[in-house]
Amino acid sequence: MAEVLINGISADYVSVADRGLNYGDGLFETIACSGTHPHFIRQHLQRMERGATRLDIPFPGRELFRQDIDRVLKNSAGSKSVIKLILTRGHGKRGYRYDTKQPPTRICVRSPWPAQVVHWAQQGFRARFCQTPASVNPRLAGIKSLNRLENVLASNELGDRFDEGLLSDIDGNVVEGTMSNLFAVIDDAVVTPDLSRCGIAGIMREQIIDSAHEIGIRIENVNLSRDDVMNSQELFISNSVIGLCVLKQLEQRSFNRHMITEVIQSRLNKKIDADAETDA
Amino acid sequence: MAEVLINGISADYVSVADRGLNYGDGLFETIACSGTHPHFIRQHLQRMERGATRLDIPFPGRELFRQDIDRVLKNSAGSKSVIKLILTRGHGKRGYRYDTKQPPTRICVRSPWPAQVVHWAQQGFRARFCQTPASVNPRLAGIKSLNRLENVLASNELGDRFDEGLLSDIDGNVVEGTMSNLFAVIDDAVVTPDLSRCGIAGIMREQIIDSAHEIGIRIENVNLSRDDVMNSQELFISNSVIGLCVLKQLEQRSFNRHMITEVIQSRLNKKIDADAETDA
Repeated sequence: MAEVLINGISADYVSVADRGLNYGDGLFETIACSGTHPHFIRQHLQRMERGATRLDIPFPGRELFRQDIDRVLKNSAGSKSVIKLILTRGHGKRGYRYDTKQPPTRICVRSPWPAQVVHWAQQGFRARFCQTPASVNPRLAGIKSLNRLENVLASNELGDRFDEGLLSDIDGNVVEGTMSNLFAVIDDAVVTPDLSRCGIAGIMREQIIDSAHEIGIRIENVNLSRDDVMNSQELFISNSVIGLCVLKQLEQRSFNRHMITEVIQSRLNKKIDADAETDA
Repeated sequence: MAEVLINGISADYVSVADRGLNYGDGLFETIACSGTHPHFIRQHLQRMERGATRLDIPFPGRELFRQDIDRVLKNSAGSKSVIKLILTRGHGKRGYRYDTKQPPTRICVRSPWPAQVVHWAQQGFRARFCQTPASVNPRLAGIKSLNRLENVLASNELGDRFDEGLLSDIDGNVVEGTMSNLFAVIDDAVVTPDLSRCGIAGIMREQIIDSAHEIGIRIENVNLSRDDVMNSQELFISNSVIGLCVLKQLEQRSFNRHMITEVIQSRLNKKIDADAETDA
C-alpha cells in the first residue's frame, strides 16, 4: 500500500478544485530510495524548485519536502522503494488565471519498488518508435510537469512486445522514451536529444552527462532522426528508478555492443554509490 | 459554493492516485446553464465522448452525465450557472501505462455564473498576443484535455490591462485565445485558425461555423500570422460561457467595425434560443 502525505498530513485525497487535477498545473519528481536514503534528493528538489520558478508556483521550500520524505521512509530500512513528490498550484477559483498568493499543494507518496526493474537491468529494454508525437512547446520543455498525456498515450503503444517507446516531435526529431531519456553512441561519440523544445530533462540524464565528462567522454545535445537512432552503435536509456539501462532491441534491430555504455555505466554506478553515502 | 458530484456521489475530493491529477489524463467540458437548462448539452457530451475515444478512456455514457447535471441543476430555476464536467482515466497503479478496464472518474461541478461575462458582452474584450506558445501535438490537437498548462501560463500574461490573450505556435501561427477560439474577418471573409496541430475545438466555435454557413457566409480554417490577425477588419472570440464577443482592442489597435460579426452573432443568438427550448 502506498503511504501518502498531503501538505504534511496523512491523507489519500485532494480537493476536486485542485489545479493539479483541473489543468495539470503542477510538477512531480520520482525518486529511487534505498532504505531510508532517497537518491539524488538534492538534485530532485533543485529541479522541482527550478520548475516551480518557471511555472510561477510558490515553492514551499526543500526542508518541508525533506521532512515529508523522512517520515514516509522512516520504516523502510533494508527495502527499496519509490517516492513521488507532487507540487500543484493548489486550489483556487474557477478559470485558468491564478492568484500568486494561493498556497500550493505538496504531496509525497511512497510506493513499493517496481518488480520489472530487476528484469530490465538484466535483460535490457526492447524498444519501438511510437506514433504519438512529443508536444513541442519551448516554454514547457524540460520541465517535469503534470501535463503528461503524450507519455500516457505513447506508453499504450508498447503492448507485450516492447518495454519502452521512443517519441519524436512533428519534425521527426527523436526526443525521449515514454519514461526515460535516450542516449546514442554514433561514430564513437555519445549524443542525446536536445530538449529545448520538448521532453523532460531527467536527473539521471544529468548524472550520466556528468559521468561522461568526468571520464573525458563528450556528450552532445543534438537533433536525432529515427534513422540516426536506428543506425547507432549503442543505445541506452535512463531514469531515476532504472538508472542506466541498455536498449538491446529497437524495432527489428538487435544491439549487442555496449562498450562505451558500460564505461559510462561503471562511472555512474560510482556516483550512485557516493550519493548513497551522503546524508539523506 | 460549488456543488460537486463524483461518480454520482456528493463529494469534494478525489484520490491522490487519480490519473487526472498525476498526468492530466482526462477531459473536461464547461457548460453554460440557464436555470435548469444546460446549453448545447448534446454537443458537449458528444465532444467528450469523441475525446474519450481519442484518448482511449472508457466513456461512462451520456445518460450518467445527464443525471449528474440534472441533480446539480435541480434548484437552479431562474439563475444562470456554469457546469464543469471532468472525465479522468480513474486511479490505477503507478506509471504511465494504463489498464483499459480501469473504471474512469466522472466529476460534475456547478459554479455560480461569472460576474465578468456581462461586462465583456457589453464592453468587448481587450486582447494581447501572449509569449507563451501553444503546444504543437496533432495527437492531442482539438481535444479539451486536462493538459492545460499553456493556457494557465498564457493567462498570467494578461494583468489588469487585458481580458484575453492570443497564443501562437512555435511557427508563429495564431491558434486561439487562452480561454476562447478566435475568428477574424479578412477581405470580408471569415477565417478561424486551423486546429489540426494545436488548440481546442470549442462547441461555440462549431455553432458559429454552422451559423455562418446557414446565412451563406463561408468560414475557412486557415493559418493566421500575427500580422494577419492585427490587420483584420473585425475580430471576435467565442467560448461556451461568453458565447460570441467582439475584440474591441488588440495590443495598441482598436477595432470599431463589427458588421459581419453582428450578422453572425444575430444568427448564433437564434441558435442559442432554439437550443434553450429543447429538452435539457
